Amino acid sequence: MNERELSPLVSAGFFFAETARDGDARTTLLRTPRANIETPVFMPVGTQASVKSQTPDEVAATGARIILANTYHLWLRPGAERVETLGGVQRFMSWPHAMLTDSGGYQVFSLAKLRKIDDHGVSFRSHLSGEHKLLTPEESMRVQACLGSDIAMLLDECPPGAAPRAVIEAAMKRTSAWARRSLAAPRHPGQARFGIVQGGTQLDLRFSHLADIASLEVDGVALGGFSVGEPIPDMYRVLAELAPKMPRDKPRYLMGVGTPYDLLAAIGSGIDMFDCVLPTRNARNGQALTWHGRVNLRQARHTEDTAPLDPDCGCPVCQRFTRAYLRHLFNAKEMLGPRLITEHNLWFYGELTARARKAIRAGKYAAFARDAAARMRDGDEIKTRVVG
Amino acid sequence: MNERELSPLVSAGFFFAETARDGDARTTLLRTPRANIETPVFMPVGTQASVKSQTPDEVAATGARIILANTYHLWLRPGAERVETLGGVQRFMSWPHAMLTDSGGYQVFSLAKLRKIDDHGVSFRSHLSGEHKLLTPEESMRVQACLGSDIAMLLDECPPGAAPRAVIEAAMKRTSAWARRSLAAPRHPGQARFGIVQGGTQLDLRFSHLADIASLEVDGVALGGFSVGEPIPDMYRVLAELAPKMPRDKPRYLMGVGTPYDLLAAIGSGIDMFDCVLPTRNARNGQALTWHGRVNLRQARHTEDTAPLDPDCGCPVCQRFTRAYLRHLFNAKEMLGPRLITEHNLWFYGELTARARKAIRAGKYAAFARDAAARMRDGDEIKTRVVG
Repeated sequence: MNERELSPLVSAGFFFAETARDGDARTTLLRTPRANIETPVFMPVGTQASVKSQTPDEVAATGARIILANTYHLWLRPGAERVETLGGVQRFMSWPHAMLTDSGGYQVFSLAKLRKIDDHGVSFRSHLSGEHKLLTPEESMRVQACLGSDIAMLLDECPPGAAPRAVIEAAMKRTSAWARRSLAAPRHPGQARFGIVQGGTQLDLRFSHLADIASLEVDGVALGGFSVGEPIPDMYRVLAELAPKMPRDKPRYLMGVGTPYDLLAAIGSGIDMFDCVLPTRNARNGQALTWHGRVNLRQARHTEDTAPLDPDCGCPVCQRFTRAYLRHLFNAKEMLGPRLITEHNLWFYGELTARARKAIRAGKYAAFARDAAARMRDGDEIKTRVVG
Repeated sequence: MNERELSPLVSAGFFFAETARDGDARTTLLRTPRANIETPVFMPVGTQASVKSQTPDEVAATGARIILANTYHLWLRPGAERVETLGGVQRFMSWPHAMLTDSGGYQVFSLAKLRKIDDHGVSFRSHLSGEHKLLTPEESMRVQACLGSDIAMLLDECPPGAAPRAVIEAAMKRTSAWARRSLAAPRHPGQARFGIVQGGTQLDLRFSHLADIASLEVDGVALGGFSVGEPIPDMYRVLAELAPKMPRDKPRYLMGVGTPYDLLAAIGSGIDMFDCVLPTRNARNGQALTWHGRVNLRQARHTEDTAPLDPDCGCPVCQRFTRAYLRHLFNAKEMLGPRLITEHNLWFYGELTARARKAIRAGKYAAFARDAAARMRDGDEIKTRVVG
């Protein structure tokens, strides 16, 4: 299949096609009005309309053509109408490619105070101003329309990983009702809408909710409620069954995931899109992700180490700076330290997905993923978690 | 005069020539083993072997071919011997051009604890580890030799701006004695040495100390003890008399100065080299320096301002980002804010000195400096200080 055979999605200006397949893994091409996005793709997180410490050019240099911004944060500051006045979030931050915004729900639950949820929506107090706000499916769509992202997410309710079955079922029911209200709300021209599947780690619930969400007029289907406290092997087990059954003619997005191991496993199950704060957040703690596992610059072993972070990395940081210098920047609390590690980590995620796409096209994904995970585990300096 | 007519300075590998003159203002060329430096020049400050938040490429793009690092900081962390092991400070931080290191004295007085000064040197406790250390003229030269900078400064004693005449005279005497001991210490091949003139704002003391320091085998002559609390008009008055009498065949360096107004005035008096934390430090507080005065991004007037920081600036930040976005970055405490303003401010200082050099060569420096200062005063958003 090639680019000329792209199929239209629900929303005008959006096209999609599977371009290669290898087992359950696949490559696809998602065309939005602002970008051609090859998947599997990792979307760097630009919470407050800034991928922390990076310029738009640096983010694009990692291969990223789509990033994520958080509706909750931009709604509260600088404000949805203000971003709209300033030309939308992409123009505001000078990012010329595509943008996905979340619904705001996840941050309301994790950051806001005095939350009260009912079928109408979620009332809360801003964690910044203390102001009373109300997030409903309609308000989420309105705010995301002001932000003007390429892809908007429908408001969902995401229960914790350890929630009992009844709680998960109630969240699924509410998420389904909210999805319908979101789709009935005024739509922003040029903005696609992705629905979210809940259901915890119980396969029957996941399949039932997937059937419902996939039946709606959505441009893509996302999996929420993963990496929210459940055992990671449970996530892998459910993904292996669930992802291959997601619609083949729409993008499949695994929200908020994950580690390099998580990406390798989920790509193997057929997931197309990812986002996670891990590469940017861990960078600020001195942790670099590499083809040889995690490098922890806080460890004294790097004090006089003149090697780059990763000899197999082509990023601008690995071309120029030693581990000894990067460690010094962290010790000295110099802003350049987090900045350079962030650049490296995003480059690594871009390269990880690029090599995955290449392996899928060559029909060698399983071997690629197995070898990459083994090499990372062998060299990992942080022996605290065994996964995959 | 052209480049082929450069004269050797005291240290092997260093050459110098005045290349144009306009009143007391002048352009010169200083050649070090690592860089050709056109003056008047502003040296960005890279305290801990990092110009805060900037990569070496970004610093070089502002026109800078020499930066400053602080001996005190690098001596304590990561340590002089460690920097030497790692190839010297330029290689350590991947800065391919020239570097000047200060003597360490200024930071011992401003940062260290339990200082005790006598003719031998200064004993103090590290502000990081609490360790007892002793800074002598010989130790300063040894540490700077380990760092391997192009230009080392001789240890001086810098009294406060309001010090009585007797205290200033005692500091001059000690500075003269320490300068001789520094020059008698083992020298680092390829490293030039600049002496420092003290004397407060009393012209007779400044002339007498200048005569002494200029008589030594130094490659350049620096003025210390300015911008240390004295009234700024007093500094301008002394510079106007003193700078033209400094040796013509050596670089003239005004340490720790200053604002754009300070540079314009001091260049008019014949100063060649400057360093100051102002453009980098003020950037981190949301203050941009522009051809139209200071822009304070903390002011609400910029909330929806889609103009660049300075319409007359060619820097990468002014080409791409609005004041509204930069203000948002500051409000949201995003690292990208200080980073981008720092880049702009260093670009502005580079451009200010470049235009000064051009005006001097054209014989129009007085008019250039007068017009530039007037325009900056007119547009300044921070009406707290009247100088120049």
